[in-house]
Amino acid sequence: MAEQKAYNVAVVGATGAVGQKIIGILEREPFSIGEVKLLSSKRSAGKVLQFAGKDITVEEATTESFKGIDFAFFSAGGSVSIKLAPEAAKQGAIVIDNTSAFRMDEGTPLVVPEVNCEDIKMQKGIIANPNCSTIQMVAALKPIKEAFGLTRVIVSTYQAVSGAGNEAVKELKEQTRNYLEGKEMTANILPAGSDKKHYPIAFNALPQIDVFQDNGYTFEEMKMINETKKILHDPNLHVAATCVRLPFISSHAESVYVEVEKEGLSVADLHKVLEKADGVILQDNPSEQIYPTPLEAMSKDEVFVGRVRKDPDNAKGFHMWIVSDNLLKGAALNSVQIAKAMIKNNYLNS
Amino acid sequence: MAEQKAYNVAVVGATGAVGQKIIGILEREPFSIGEVKLLSSKRSAGKVLQFAGKDITVEEATTESFKGIDFAFFSAGGSVSIKLAPEAAKQGAIVIDNTSAFRMDEGTPLVVPEVNCEDIKMQKGIIANPNCSTIQMVAALKPIKEAFGLTRVIVSTYQAVSGAGNEAVKELKEQTRNYLEGKEMTANILPAGSDKKHYPIAFNALPQIDVFQDNGYTFEEMKMINETKKILHDPNLHVAATCVRLPFISSHAESVYVEVEKEGLSVADLHKVLEKADGVILQDNPSEQIYPTPLEAMSKDEVFVGRVRKDPDNAKGFHMWIVSDNLLKGAALNSVQIAKAMIKNNYLNS
Repeated sequence: MAEQKAYNVAVVGATGAVGQKIIGILEREPFSIGEVKLLSSKRSAGKVLQFAGKDITVEEATTESFKGIDFAFFSAGGSVSIKLAPEAAKQGAIVIDNTSAFRMDEGTPLVVPEVNCEDIKMQKGIIANPNCSTIQMVAALKPIKEAFGLTRVIVSTYQAVSGAGNEAVKELKEQTRNYLEGKEMTANILPAGSDKKHYPIAFNALPQIDVFQDNGYTFEEMKMINETKKILHDPNLHVAATCVRLPFISSHAESVYVEVEKEGLSVADLHKVLEKADGVILQDNPSEQIYPTPLEAMSKDEVFVGRVRKDPDNAKGFHMWIVSDNLLKGAALNSVQIAKAMIKNNYLNS
Repeated sequence: MAEQKAYNVAVVGATGAVGQKIIGILEREPFSIGEVKLLSSKRSAGKVLQFAGKDITVEEATTESFKGIDFAFFSAGGSVSIKLAPEAAKQGAIVIDNTSAFRMDEGTPLVVPEVNCEDIKMQKGIIANPNCSTIQMVAALKPIKEAFGLTRVIVSTYQAVSGAGNEAVKELKEQTRNYLEGKEMTANILPAGSDKKHYPIAFNALPQIDVFQDNGYTFEEMKMINETKKILHDPNLHVAATCVRLPFISSHAESVYVEVEKEGLSVADLHKVLEKADGVILQDNPSEQIYPTPLEAMSKDEVFVGRVRKDPDNAKGFHMWIVSDNLLKGAALNSVQIAKAMIKNNYLNS
């Protein structure tokens, strides 16, 4: 047997919600791993984390952190990526960036391996991981587009609190306890940590994820709109999104309306295509009350699709319900899958 | 001053979630009230409830319960309405029925007073109160339709647990406590009490409200589709719905996409119309993070609309977010408003 190359990895944002999940996935040995560097802000540096049973001290991420690193997984916020990702790439690392910093850069591939793996080839050191709510949607839309064409998408999301980080989950739990005990709820993080006002998420729904843009859409909604077009290579695809934060911990759900090019399709036609799709599991049997839910999808790798129905009025329209763990396929898992795809397809040396 | 007629009222389902709210609204004296009868199933009969500071013993609802009653508010389930509502009407009561039993009957008006008050005139003793999720939506759609025409509606709902009754709210709270303490959650009611399987709602989202129909839509979704067309007097209106139950206690929210007939409208044009609409409050200022939420709308009478945006691709398309207390405008309040409108417009003697 030929000797397997071991890849040195760095996790930037190792103490965060996504960083922790990346560590967990790398421990499952998706590929042969050599050195592991856990990096963070100055504030979190010095913490000791475990990797595969070994203690590793978290170091502050600096421009000097990436020598000899093959893959650098970034999930420490856009400003850290803007500062350090180009430097890491310059030092020879492949940066897989989980922030929105480079996603819409024309020269940066934005990749969901099941959907547009070949886009990785255009990389110049940085590969962007799409937004969580985009990833699960395009994973289900790609096979439909390929089989039947796709002209229009309208999505309303049901997004978990963990997408806003570990502190937001703590806040949800604390507010929930207080509400049940009849106490006042305090809100310091959601809907958006950086925004002016904060509202309770416990027993509530907040129709704001990330900050508002001038057109009245939130940044999260614009991410879904723009990233979907880029990943599916279709700038003319009609996409509209309404993004809503809800009081559950992990897994985003999405109510998605699509219009396809082909007329006269049945639900069974869509089922056939979704059943065969990479990384997608069809859970759709109304008579047995089978459909995906966030609680059931938590900690699972796949994208789950159910509630596929024909639009009552439009012969090319279908509705469906898409659920996936936002920290796994929506973030950490997709990042590691990008690295894995590069190794498998020999994109590293090309 | 002329002597005011006092109206005798009966509340059928007086111990239920909606019945309790009806009692609360009648205590606010929407019109002059004479005798008050609180009725229920045999099981709940004998309980003592308060009305305007007076003790009233709940009686079992029978065919003999409605003599001398002017308005009978029914919210004790479809089977009770089917059995007793025609009898109550025969005895001269105006039945205002909060179940789905008579809603789609051609000869029964289905009424949201701000929207189609004049339909009351066709009543033959029974007036149907629409489904909670329909009421708040048509309250916002009607002024838009009137001003600009309306051709298409796609709605995804975010529905509160109280829509499934008081026991479902108890279940949500108990599951929530258990989840936070790391204990097992048990589910006996949701998604639909009458259905085979039950799933936890705490920290979850259930894409099933009421039972499934043969076409893959739930009964709740079909109610929204069919009732919207009936109330807006437009059988050709395209309506599609996805209904989802979520872990909050009261107030439904809805992400609604509409297509109007008139082209080239701005968000300001829609704002103008919604601002003037009866029973609607516009809460829409993204730069100040002003939008409605279920927690804020709880215990309020109005329908709140925010997040009005132009569709990025369709010049006739708009998205919005509609929130209202499902037990008030969505049920109890609308029922009482129907009675009030009949008195005010002299529909009783016509």
